[in-house]
Amino acid sequence: MAQKVTPKILSGFMELLPAEQLVFDEMKELIEKTYKSFGFVSLDTPVLELSDVLLAKAGGETEKQIYRFSKGNNDLCMRFDLTVPLARYVAQHQNDLTFPFKRYQISKVYRGERPQKGRFREFYQADIDIIGSEKLSVLYDAEMPAVMYHVFKRLGLNKFCIKMNNRKLMNGFYESLGLTEQSPEISRIIDKMDKIGVENVKACLKDLDLSDGLIEKIISFTEIYGKSESVIEKISSFNIQNELFETGLNELKVVAQAMKNLGVPDNNYEIDLKITRGLDYYTGTVYETFVDSHQDWGSICSGGRYENLAGYYTDRKLPGVGMSIGLTRFFDLLKDQNMINSQKSTAADVLVLPMDESATDYALKLAHLLRTNDINVQTYAADGKFKNKMVYANKIGVPFVIVIGEDEVSSQTVTLKNMQSGMQEKCPSEALASVLKEHLAVLEKEKKSLIDEK
Amino acid sequence: MAQKVTPKILSGFMELLPAEQLVFDEMKELIEKTYKSFGFVSLDTPVLELSDVLLAKAGGETEKQIYRFSKGNNDLCMRFDLTVPLARYVAQHQNDLTFPFKRYQISKVYRGERPQKGRFREFYQADIDIIGSEKLSVLYDAEMPAVMYHVFKRLGLNKFCIKMNNRKLMNGFYESLGLTEQSPEISRIIDKMDKIGVENVKACLKDLDLSDGLIEKIISFTEIYGKSESVIEKISSFNIQNELFETGLNELKVVAQAMKNLGVPDNNYEIDLKITRGLDYYTGTVYETFVDSHQDWGSICSGGRYENLAGYYTDRKLPGVGMSIGLTRFFDLLKDQNMINSQKSTAADVLVLPMDESATDYALKLAHLLRTNDINVQTYAADGKFKNKMVYANKIGVPFVIVIGEDEVSSQTVTLKNMQSGMQEKCPSEALASVLKEHLAVLEKEKKSLIDEK
Repeated sequence: MAQKVTPKILSGFMELLPAEQLVFDEMKELIEKTYKSFGFVSLDTPVLELSDVLLAKAGGETEKQIYRFSKGNNDLCMRFDLTVPLARYVAQHQNDLTFPFKRYQISKVYRGERPQKGRFREFYQADIDIIGSEKLSVLYDAEMPAVMYHVFKRLGLNKFCIKMNNRKLMNGFYESLGLTEQSPEISRIIDKMDKIGVENVKACLKDLDLSDGLIEKIISFTEIYGKSESVIEKISSFNIQNELFETGLNELKVVAQAMKNLGVPDNNYEIDLKITRGLDYYTGTVYETFVDSHQDWGSICSGGRYENLAGYYTDRKLPGVGMSIGLTRFFDLLKDQNMINSQKSTAADVLVLPMDESATDYALKLAHLLRTNDINVQTYAADGKFKNKMVYANKIGVPFVIVIGEDEVSSQTVTLKNMQSGMQEKCPSEALASVLKEHLAVLEKEKKSLIDEK
Repeated sequence: MAQKVTPKILSGFMELLPAEQLVFDEMKELIEKTYKSFGFVSLDTPVLELSDVLLAKAGGETEKQIYRFSKGNNDLCMRFDLTVPLARYVAQHQNDLTFPFKRYQISKVYRGERPQKGRFREFYQADIDIIGSEKLSVLYDAEMPAVMYHVFKRLGLNKFCIKMNNRKLMNGFYESLGLTEQSPEISRIIDKMDKIGVENVKACLKDLDLSDGLIEKIISFTEIYGKSESVIEKISSFNIQNELFETGLNELKVVAQAMKNLGVPDNNYEIDLKITRGLDYYTGTVYETFVDSHQDWGSICSGGRYENLAGYYTDRKLPGVGMSIGLTRFFDLLKDQNMINSQKSTAADVLVLPMDESATDYALKLAHLLRTNDINVQTYAADGKFKNKMVYANKIGVPFVIVIGEDEVSSQTVTLKNMQSGMQEKCPSEALASVLKEHLAVLEKEKKSLIDEK
């Protein structure tokens, strides 16, 4: 075989080396564990869906990015998010589901975008949603940011802020100013505040033929942000008389109170009346999440309350609330900033190294014994130089090595080496599992979080 | 919105309801945990690959089944297995990997086959492979079935058999009969023994112009199977003088011995000289796995030793050994036979039910407290009738319910109900976490395995 094909992948696809993959997997596991701790169950919908089903609602930009093709008589699409498949799933299986239905899905989605830094064509989303039948208590709106707070804490992030707003509050405010009709356009402009600055926002609002007084009022209102108590006080000082506004304000209060009960500290969330999140989908609470030291990353976790999940598929009204982490992008940003703590490129806690073939039987038996004690063990075949074996141990970053030579076999002991400290100890084989477990417990305690905040 | 789109998916795609999905996920987790316990690290390659890279080797039937399409200037394929992506990955990243390289990948693959019972267009494969650089000790051939033995045991399967053979042994045998040239064709025929029966096999061999004596010899040799010691004895009685044969026999001996050391009991594996597994890829040890009570399922986990993983991509010789579980098909077969133990459709251990809104603060705080004690807790919003809440609890199959009314709030207690036994107890809030943990530990002990062997 002379002609070789160059092994490569399409750009815009993230593929990791083992050390990084291990961290990515651990992040995914921690996210999943946290989702489960709130009772969410996983879904695993197909990557391929029928185009007429998946695109019932889509259009414009999204549709252009979709990987769509025919096979046989089928017109197929790769999913571009996890929300439309959720809507399809819930509508399809509605008679077999129990509402409120709490699901998570951590899966890859596909968008055939022009690749550029930070944009991926294949990326993980880590979604949670709670779907009600006909109605859904606003208390569930508090659960979303509570889940996400605990997710980011577990990942090792401390300095982040979940920002919340409420669309009813905002629409009620615009209504009270007689701007019901213009409110979508105003929201779109306010949404750009952080990007274009307050002066440009004012100019844009002026283009809508709003009076200077109205503009000032809108600006001073939407500039309100901070801890919930102080924000609610400031909002009240505007003395707005509007039913929708009152509903929204009350929802904000209930959600803030419930978040406190669910263990979210004041430092990690605030109300920010600039947050709007798209326009046609969300109808109540909306969320965005920012890393304090990297506001430039934009929101790493967003979502909100929607009125009806699956109107394209069913008459049944299915209100819901959801949040989503763009996991691949988040990981890539962390990686770029050297904020990932990766330490080893093996799943093993210990590597068993027989010095020569006569040690093999004993080595394999010991490995088996350790595995039955819930220790992850890799064995290295006996052939080859000892030096090469230690090079291997160093390269894969395994924390402990067990060396077995003639002496060890005849005395039924092992030489246990701590690869970090370099310390070596002799240990009788029957005590090995408990000794190792103690060492590993120490390591576990010293273990750095996955994200290094610096 | 009058016109609704019927929510459905393409046939040949497995989509599960929550109760089954939970079991599937647990199976996947147990498999992953076992793979890791042997030090395998996960890979997560893209679902989409460049066609000229992915199809460097493919052809014939496989190529017809592939989901292939163009997007922009790219000719793309959805992966049809995890082996070709592994080859591409190892060749591409060879300078960043440490050999022997042990990887697992549990991912979906795609084949646009005509859908039929038991055939899927999207299905999980759960692969392990160990790749060496230039050479790889035969001891690793023993690790494969050892891993798989522990996987199936953990899943709750006891009556299964991993069958092994060695291609060198077989080819050496045919060589010794002067049938080197015909050996691929003979292997193909022998492979069909279980399907077509010995008489038809004889007829097919006769079509190859083999003498009756040779045919008898081949049949009596390939009919050898059983525990390794007895098989090795029988094989030796054939007195075959051939180097390749000797190498193969020796490999079988080493592998069987190492498997014993790795904790695989005699009951769960045997040597079977009928096992051949395809023809052009495997070069040494080969494996198939059968469930005792369901031989008709065919092999649920197969693999073998190969000479060179990535010859299409690199000059570096990369020998390896691997096994793979066809997870989606296996799960589907178990499901069909009611062999899946599914019990609940929530990830929660306990459901907190506040009787009315005045209990909400207390309920949410308790839920948070329990979660910080590693208990999975779902809360139910306070609105609605109590009866409906208990119906919900029953439907999702949550094992414990905490009821909180006025009394409980004022006395800082809860009413804890065991949903299985119906038993209720009052419990002070500060003792709740430890009381629940004890109950859950009891449940955990009583927990049935995921697979119900009957």
